[in-house]
Amino acid sequence: MSVQDNVVFILEVIGTVAFAVSGALVGIQKSMDIFGVCVLGVITAVGGGAVRDIVVGIIPPNVFRNPVYATVAVLVSCLVFGVMYFRQSLSSERLGKLYDGAMMLMDAVGLGIFTVVGVNAGLQQGYGDNAFLLIFTGTVTGVGGGLLRDVMAGVPPYIFVRHIYACASIAGAVACTALYSVTGMTAAMFAGVMLVLVIRCLASHYRWNLPRISLENE
Amino acid sequence: MSVQDNVVFILEVIGTVAFAVSGALVGIQKSMDIFGVCVLGVITAVGGGAVRDIVVGIIPPNVFRNPVYATVAVLVSCLVFGVMYFRQSLSSERLGKLYDGAMMLMDAVGLGIFTVVGVNAGLQQGYGDNAFLLIFTGTVTGVGGGLLRDVMAGVPPYIFVRHIYACASIAGAVACTALYSVTGMTAAMFAGVMLVLVIRCLASHYRWNLPRISLENE
Amino acid sequence: MSVQDNVVFILEVIGTVAFAVSGALVGIQKSMDIFGVCVLGVITAVGGGAVRDIVVGIIPPNVFRNPVYATVAVLVSCLVFGVMYFRQSLSSERLGKLYDGAMMLMDAVGLGIFTVVGVNAGLQQGYGDNAFLLIFTGTVTGVGGGLLRDVMAGVPPYIFVRHIYACASIAGAVACTALYSVTGMTAAMFAGVMLVLVIRCLASHYRWNLPRISLENE
Repeated sequence: MSVQDNVVFILEVIGTVAFAVSGALVGIQKSMDIFGVCVLGVITAVGGGAVRDIVVGIIPPNVFRNPVYATVAVLVSCLVFGVMYFRQSLSSERLGKLYDGAMMLMDAVGLGIFTVVGVNAGLQQGYGDNAFLLIFTGTVTGVGGGLLRDVMAGVPPYIFVRHIYACASIAGAVACTALYSVTGMTAAMFAGVMLVLVIRCLASHYRWNLPRISLENE
Repeated sequence: MSVQDNVVFILEVIGTVAFAVSGALVGIQKSMDIFGVCVLGVITAVGGGAVRDIVVGIIPPNVFRNPVYATVAVLVSCLVFGVMYFRQSLSSERLGKLYDGAMMLMDAVGLGIFTVVGVNAGLQQGYGDNAFLLIFTGTVTGVGGGLLRDVMAGVPPYIFVRHIYACASIAGAVACTALYSVTGMTAAMFAGVMLVLVIRCLASHYRWNLPRISLENE
Repeated sequence: MSVQDNVVFILEVIGTVAFAVSGALVGIQKSMDIFGVCVLGVITAVGGGAVRDIVVGIIPPNVFRNPVYATVAVLVSCLVFGVMYFRQSLSSERLGKLYDGAMMLMDAVGLGIFTVVGVNAGLQQGYGDNAFLLIFTGTVTGVGGGLLRDVMAGVPPYIFVRHIYACASIAGAVACTALYSVTGMTAAMFAGVMLVLVIRCLASHYRWNLPRISLENE
């Protein structure tokens, strides 16, 4: 493996861990048992990548060929379950804050990493001349895992209710696509991840508000 | 591009506009902000086509290669959001009626167009000798976008609760498949779209009722 | 067709019937009309197989090429609707018990059969040297139909709330993968199906409980 392959692999593992944590947390909040929590962790962690691979024509998807992603996701989900199990004594208020913060951060890390990994996968498959495809594939890969997680768990998807979620992913994908020919892929990927993280954290911290329509007839 | 390619492209753009409007309207009713509304508009507009392309083996799907569909969907979603934003002053009753009528019509137009476009995609990929595949692909393409929209937004899917929804799509796909060798594809597609529209409008206007089981133990 | 092809085909038809029944029952419980019930029956019955085919590279998926699966699913769904329609006179308590039992059994049969059919599809596509892929493909095929059914119908997915659901499928896939080179595929598939059925029935009968976290702040 080249240096860049290693960078991509390490990023993917970190993203898998982050998304598995977010999936496990949602499962715990929905009162699922430990198996349900693991399943949701795995779906969140491998879902985005599976969709990406099918879309760019890597069949069977990589997550089906290489057991490392599913294994990591199961281990992480069990770990999260164990930690939360022994934290039940915490006051509910502190737990709620911990939960919200952990969800936001883990989801943002997964979003950023899978976005740039998606751009990279499009490039590897030879679509470097189609910037739109790279950006769209990056965004679908980034938001896919979290969207599957929320739809399966029956909670309102993050992407529709959180501040500037899809936009952060698009911004990261655009940055990565624009930079890779100048800075090399490794630097472009880091820049993309950082941009997504910064946008999501700022939007979450300052609770950027966007126009919304309140229909009276509801 | 041949004349027929142009017809297909124009139909696809009209269908994209119609489904984007329906997605944006659902997003607005679920009190999403403008970004959420755009995301739901795009998912509804490109979802059916993406599923169709993966199913018939066009990979990456056309919507990933050609930015026109996503761009149109974003613009239309923003426009719908803008119009509704300045219509908040309307009485809630009139708004509710407007909403229901607009949803029904836009959804029916998208359903009809994507159904025949799906049949056409199956033909282009060389499955003309398998009428079942053409009809099934047409139906999946037609109902796919709306199904994704409703599942993501957490509302009961149109396809399960509306009068004769999947049946209208199947009827349109059958008509298009049966006619194309006789009348040519362009006429067959128009006939299919019209049939879907007429069936949906009649079913909606006369509120055709179908047997339903009321379980007492619920 | 060889003997083994016949065995696979017969298993698939039985699995299609079982999943169609489970889909129709969920549709009836959600008060869908007869068309909605049929659509949900078809989605449940062909969903898992369609996902499996796309994942292992059989494009278009077999369910799009061969009308027998969708036809069987429609007929079975109508039959279930008809039977339940004339059973409305039953006391609600007896109906509730009948419903729960039928759902559990039909879902378990479908789960078991589609799991081993998924393993077999991976083998047929030449991935016999990758046990992880076989097991993962089997599990995705097994749980896919029921997951689609529950997400579409807006009920909490079986896989997250039922006792040892994904685990039963994984166990069946592992058994089938481990045995086929020793016992031949036919025996391995039967062993896999039986294992899934036994695990699910035991778990359901004895209501095996798994650790679960009750968050106070909900």
